Amino acid sequence: MTKLLSNTGTSNLNHLLDLDTYSQRDIEQILNSAEGMLEVLERDIKKVPLLRGKTIITLFFESSTRTRVSFEQAGKVLSADVINVTANDSSKSKGESFLNTALTLQAMKADAIIIRHPNSGAPNFLANRLNTCIINAGDGAHAHPSQSLLDLFTLRKNIGDLSGKKIAIVGDILYSRVARSNLWGLTRMGADLTLCGPPTLIPSDYVHKHNLQSKHPFSNVRVEPNLKKALENADAIMVLRLQQERQIAGHIPSLREYSRYYGINADRLKFAKDSAILMHPGPMNEGVEIETDVAHGNQSVVQDQVNYGVAVRMAILQFLITNQASRK
Amino acid sequence: MTKLLSNTGTSNLNHLLDLDTYSQRDIEQILNSAEGMLEVLERDIKKVPLLRGKTIITLFFESSTRTRVSFEQAGKVLSADVINVTANDSSKSKGESFLNTALTLQAMKADAIIIRHPNSGAPNFLANRLNTCIINAGDGAHAHPSQSLLDLFTLRKNIGDLSGKKIAIVGDILYSRVARSNLWGLTRMGADLTLCGPPTLIPSDYVHKHNLQSKHPFSNVRVEPNLKKALENADAIMVLRLQQERQIAGHIPSLREYSRYYGINADRLKFAKDSAILMHPGPMNEGVEIETDVAHGNQSVVQDQVNYGVAVRMAILQFLITNQASRK
Amino acid sequence: MTKLLSNTGTSNLNHLLDLDTYSQRDIEQILNSAEGMLEVLERDIKKVPLLRGKTIITLFFESSTRTRVSFEQAGKVLSADVINVTANDSSKSKGESFLNTALTLQAMKADAIIIRHPNSGAPNFLANRLNTCIINAGDGAHAHPSQSLLDLFTLRKNIGDLSGKKIAIVGDILYSRVARSNLWGLTRMGADLTLCGPPTLIPSDYVHKHNLQSKHPFSNVRVEPNLKKALENADAIMVLRLQQERQIAGHIPSLREYSRYYGINADRLKFAKDSAILMHPGPMNEGVEIETDVAHGNQSVVQDQVNYGVAVRMAILQFLITNQASRK
Repeated sequence: MTKLLSNTGTSNLNHLLDLDTYSQRDIEQILNSAEGMLEVLERDIKKVPLLRGKTIITLFFESSTRTRVSFEQAGKVLSADVINVTANDSSKSKGESFLNTALTLQAMKADAIIIRHPNSGAPNFLANRLNTCIINAGDGAHAHPSQSLLDLFTLRKNIGDLSGKKIAIVGDILYSRVARSNLWGLTRMGADLTLCGPPTLIPSDYVHKHNLQSKHPFSNVRVEPNLKKALENADAIMVLRLQQERQIAGHIPSLREYSRYYGINADRLKFAKDSAILMHPGPMNEGVEIETDVAHGNQSVVQDQVNYGVAVRMAILQFLITNQASRK
Repeated sequence: MTKLLSNTGTSNLNHLLDLDTYSQRDIEQILNSAEGMLEVLERDIKKVPLLRGKTIITLFFESSTRTRVSFEQAGKVLSADVINVTANDSSKSKGESFLNTALTLQAMKADAIIIRHPNSGAPNFLANRLNTCIINAGDGAHAHPSQSLLDLFTLRKNIGDLSGKKIAIVGDILYSRVARSNLWGLTRMGADLTLCGPPTLIPSDYVHKHNLQSKHPFSNVRVEPNLKKALENADAIMVLRLQQERQIAGHIPSLREYSRYYGINADRLKFAKDSAILMHPGPMNEGVEIETDVAHGNQSVVQDQVNYGVAVRMAILQFLITNQASRK
Repeated sequence: MTKLLSNTGTSNLNHLLDLDTYSQRDIEQILNSAEGMLEVLERDIKKVPLLRGKTIITLFFESSTRTRVSFEQAGKVLSADVINVTANDSSKSKGESFLNTALTLQAMKADAIIIRHPNSGAPNFLANRLNTCIINAGDGAHAHPSQSLLDLFTLRKNIGDLSGKKIAIVGDILYSRVARSNLWGLTRMGADLTLCGPPTLIPSDYVHKHNLQSKHPFSNVRVEPNLKKALENADAIMVLRLQQERQIAGHIPSLREYSRYYGINADRLKFAKDSAILMHPGPMNEGVEIETDVAHGNQSVVQDQVNYGVAVRMAILQFLITNQASRK
């Protein structure tokens, strides 16, 4: 994808664009480091000097509380300086090219640029052209690797080693960057993955490819439109956010209809294992893709996902920026 | 109000929602601490490590320079990390519930969330549900306790002990969160309070309750619609901001009419004691509720109020966050 | 201009409003200091404690990435606390006067206020009324002195001592605050300046004054509407941004027409010396005032200008704030 990326170990990893180029060992290194970061966050003085004198710029072309604040807090706890740039105050309104905006930020001696962009591939575009570490904080319907890493961390903390575990991802697979990154992350860690949703919201090539499993990189992924079958024996259910725009665009007849067939409620949760955990990347549309009682119920680890967000992003920042420094 | 609040001393004070639950001793403790903070702010290096490694999040659903910047500066001088979240970049636009947004911020390991919200009671709602310190930076027409504390500090610095002092609050009492918090704060400190404004802008139950003074918590508060009588013998005059929306809503015939009867000018200032000080929480509508000459005149302490804002908010942050830590 | 300003040396310099009050020695002091700052920015730990415990407020009434982020980074590398205020979250929407907003920020104990404002003279207005250091980050069509200083630094790094060097400024001179500050800066450093652009975009008094050169402060400035003649023998070409609003206002027939006569492309670049460097304050409208190939070509130092922005602004902050402290 980018010349700076490879999946032959950590030695050339300069960016976090998606998890396709991260090996199981890379991922484990980040998750292990996140355990230590969790401990830092529990201290009375939440501050370690690992990234002192480093500059992290968040460049958000879409609004976000969760991801932006989580990265900002991660940087600050590591003693980095964090500078926020949003599309509003960017030079976009002056007609400057996206590349020139990014070159300008690189020139500020940023050690990492954390970018969220509505267009798939925007972070890759930058990674190809800048010599600053690029971290993808969500691009279009493409990838959201830091979310996937915190999902992996949450799974590991709750159900242990993922090898052979059965994970169901339910909802709008077609437009979900979270699902797409988890496809890489979960299969890399050895999990068995089932994708479930209305056929209009499943990428057609996914269905197709699974008739040709031998040629497909994801041998342990299957598509199952029937919710009951998809949840059978699941160790974890990842519910995806359903955006109202899908109804307008005609992908689903109505949110109510969607909820009727794919919304996760207490009854449907029973299709999975008793010990199954329930995940959601947030923000949740309670009453649409997930009912309030189960969203905040015993099996829900949604709050864990948020809680672990800062620790995992601290580990990501350290992994990338420290690696970068050590290669100088 | 909230289970974490009590007015039995400082031991359970986790929040600053309003001053109703703060005893005279609590208030004095904060004001005394603010004296020390003032001294810190005069230093060449304005930095003390009291809140090092602590995270303060400002969550503003209404725009504000004064209050937000003042809290941000207070946090930074105390060496805390401050993260700003505004309604624009919050998940509100994605339809996330207010509670989920706040839970997300709590999960960032915030030591305090400073919230401004257009709806009365929003901070109390959070205080009931989160285990993070909540500081109310103004909620609807309900309360603005940090403003009241800096008003108390400004009064103390200018006219000394408040016991028995005569304070007149003039203007839009009905919609003023500043007036409402000062009602608690000033009476707690023993001042005699007169509320003055057009009858349409005085809460009807205030007038009523004063016919039944014995049952009312504020025995030393009276309502006086006549400005001259209200100012008679006053040691201090607090002028409230009159919002243009009041005219549109029909509470007053016009800003000009309001100004004619209740605007504070040099002539009317003479109704009060010669030594009386003139206060305004800002931002001022000069020419409406206050004339420019008196707003910036000898008796005005408006600039003092702003000057003391950072010191008082440093004291508030230290009071709440340090207390919290000591109870762990 | 302001009572705090003089051009009799550095002793009374409290502000950076424009370069008219800065002597050659002041400018050289800042540029020399910027050399040291460049070195700091190359360190693994980009952090020096020069402005520890100082507070810098950026107050931007116009959007900007480049300048705001550059000043923010400069402040943070020097260990200052930086607080951002934008017009959106200012009290402007509440009808507060510009002066009261600024007084409020001064009261936060700001050591410097960095202001960008659409109205020419806004920073001077504040400098006359506040006792805080005011740094002009661009006001209307008036001045943009920090940009000029980084242009001077870029020139010095690329073509050495400016005395007698031939510099051509091409484009919308009428509305360019960058051109106006460079008029002061470049002539102060001894350069020979040629201003070139459509007659509608050259201030008429500039043309006039040059018929009366003896009375004009800029004896080494000439106006030359013919691009070929203007570039002849130039050591450096500064291309100005052409705003689309100029077409709407009728200053030019069309962007295309402008580009045809004044756009800098590879052929026209040859009018200048072979060694000539090409500059642009950014953001560039590639294809209008400058072609993409030369904008990113061998002679372009546009990226240098951005790269040096942080170092020069660090030098500005240190020059002003340290000077201020030493006079206390």
